[in-house]
Amino acid sequence: MTVTTATLVNGKPGNVIPVSDRGLLYGDGVFETIAIRDGRPQHWPRHMQRLQAGCARLGIQPFASALLAAEAESIINTTGRGVIKLIVTRGSGGRGYRVPESAGCTRIMQLHPWPEYPAACSQEGVRTRLCKIRLGRNPALAGIKHLNRLEQVLARQEWNDADIREGLLLDTDGNLVEGTMSNVFIVSGGVLMTPDLSQCGVAGIMRTLVLELAEQQGLDTRVAPVSREALVLADEVFLTNTLIGIWPVIALGDTSWRTGGITLQLQELLSNSSDYDSGWRE
Amino acid sequence: MTVTTATLVNGKPGNVIPVSDRGLLYGDGVFETIAIRDGRPQHWPRHMQRLQAGCARLGIQPFASALLAAEAESIINTTGRGVIKLIVTRGSGGRGYRVPESAGCTRIMQLHPWPEYPAACSQEGVRTRLCKIRLGRNPALAGIKHLNRLEQVLARQEWNDADIREGLLLDTDGNLVEGTMSNVFIVSGGVLMTPDLSQCGVAGIMRTLVLELAEQQGLDTRVAPVSREALVLADEVFLTNTLIGIWPVIALGDTSWRTGGITLQLQELLSNSSDYDSGWRE
Repeated sequence: MTVTTATLVNGKPGNVIPVSDRGLLYGDGVFETIAIRDGRPQHWPRHMQRLQAGCARLGIQPFASALLAAEAESIINTTGRGVIKLIVTRGSGGRGYRVPESAGCTRIMQLHPWPEYPAACSQEGVRTRLCKIRLGRNPALAGIKHLNRLEQVLARQEWNDADIREGLLLDTDGNLVEGTMSNVFIVSGGVLMTPDLSQCGVAGIMRTLVLELAEQQGLDTRVAPVSREALVLADEVFLTNTLIGIWPVIALGDTSWRTGGITLQLQELLSNSSDYDSGWRE
Repeated sequence: MTVTTATLVNGKPGNVIPVSDRGLLYGDGVFETIAIRDGRPQHWPRHMQRLQAGCARLGIQPFASALLAAEAESIINTTGRGVIKLIVTRGSGGRGYRVPESAGCTRIMQLHPWPEYPAACSQEGVRTRLCKIRLGRNPALAGIKHLNRLEQVLARQEWNDADIREGLLLDTDGNLVEGTMSNVFIVSGGVLMTPDLSQCGVAGIMRTLVLELAEQQGLDTRVAPVSREALVLADEVFLTNTLIGIWPVIALGDTSWRTGGITLQLQELLSNSSDYDSGWRE
């Protein structure tokens, strides 16, 4: 079944925003990319929680999650798979960077077709590269999914080889942070590790869920700085995001891995997780 | 004479952009704020040069300056003062961060009224504060005037006191970088210094011009890291941008200064400079 792209701007059908919107002028906003399965948004409460946290960090007026849920329901024109991209900006107004007291917010909700990644990505793993561009470190913006994404755009411009599915990013101090569109985990000596994101990076929904599932299974997990050396020496490496789930990494440049036992175990746990549907209306 | 706000999007009257514009989605673009005096854009060649340099850095398709000049001429509906805000984004297209091969660019040109700053700002100087938020360091984005401006938005949210005209920003290493909307200079022992912007900050048109004028006068100038201590101990401090020219800084929190001789000399040089009009069509 084909999903037709459909867009709501502040709840109304439309596909434009004013040129005065601060999302355009300054990247003054946050976004979520939400998987739809069986016509239902997945991990809805987690997306709402992160969106609210992002708005709170930027000082953007909070919004009613119920309103967004109603809009999501009205826009989903499939009983199958799709993707909702939801953007919340600080709206229009203010000359210069200063936020006017009257500032509200702009909601842009857009339904897209599901990206058909080859099954081999999950089953056989993906090849990656180490990006040249580094991520700047700034705790004020770290963790949230804001609209200032030039670093990711520049990183993604570094390669065109369709065989390379993701680029991994170090920060300016040389620590591993994430992929351009995913979070990254390594397994070393039986310990599951993912980079600390207190200085940069986006704290993905799937990253949190994978950590939770691993802990429920009694796996030893650690959120800490991960050096480039630790990455290369790892026993297993994998990527996560809400659309791909878990992709084993089988290569980073000349370094190669086989899909490891903990990666397979987590893929299995994830596919059996009841988290996907939870919190969405009946 | 009152200036009416007028907007061209890709050369046509309009005030909206598609929600798929990468300027909104990722802050994937650059901008210029251009002063109009006597109905003529000021420092036009310098703005065009910086805009092209920003596009080149981001890999955005180059554009014809002559086209932008024609559009500027058509939009200027005043023989007096005004401001043009010019945004160039990578346009629409591409799923995710990846730039499609067909990517063009979107031009948004908007005429605004001149901001009427009190004459006292130039003549008596301004009070400033030191912002709590720090600027992240990333050479890949430093110097250009790109659309990822959340740091400036957050900095400008730190105060509401109308008596404080500007907030000064340190980077995450503790070095002075700039103001939220201006560049900063200090004078120490007769040497004119402004922070090196190789790691963060926007290289302002007026910053470059002031450095050139100072060098033509045989002043000792230095572009180098400036510590917070050097700022506080400076003999003179001033701010620059294309709309304000030079504003002496008379206070930073509890530290105060008198407007110094070199600041006054540079204000005088600037007001007599022939650079303003140069390069604009007859």
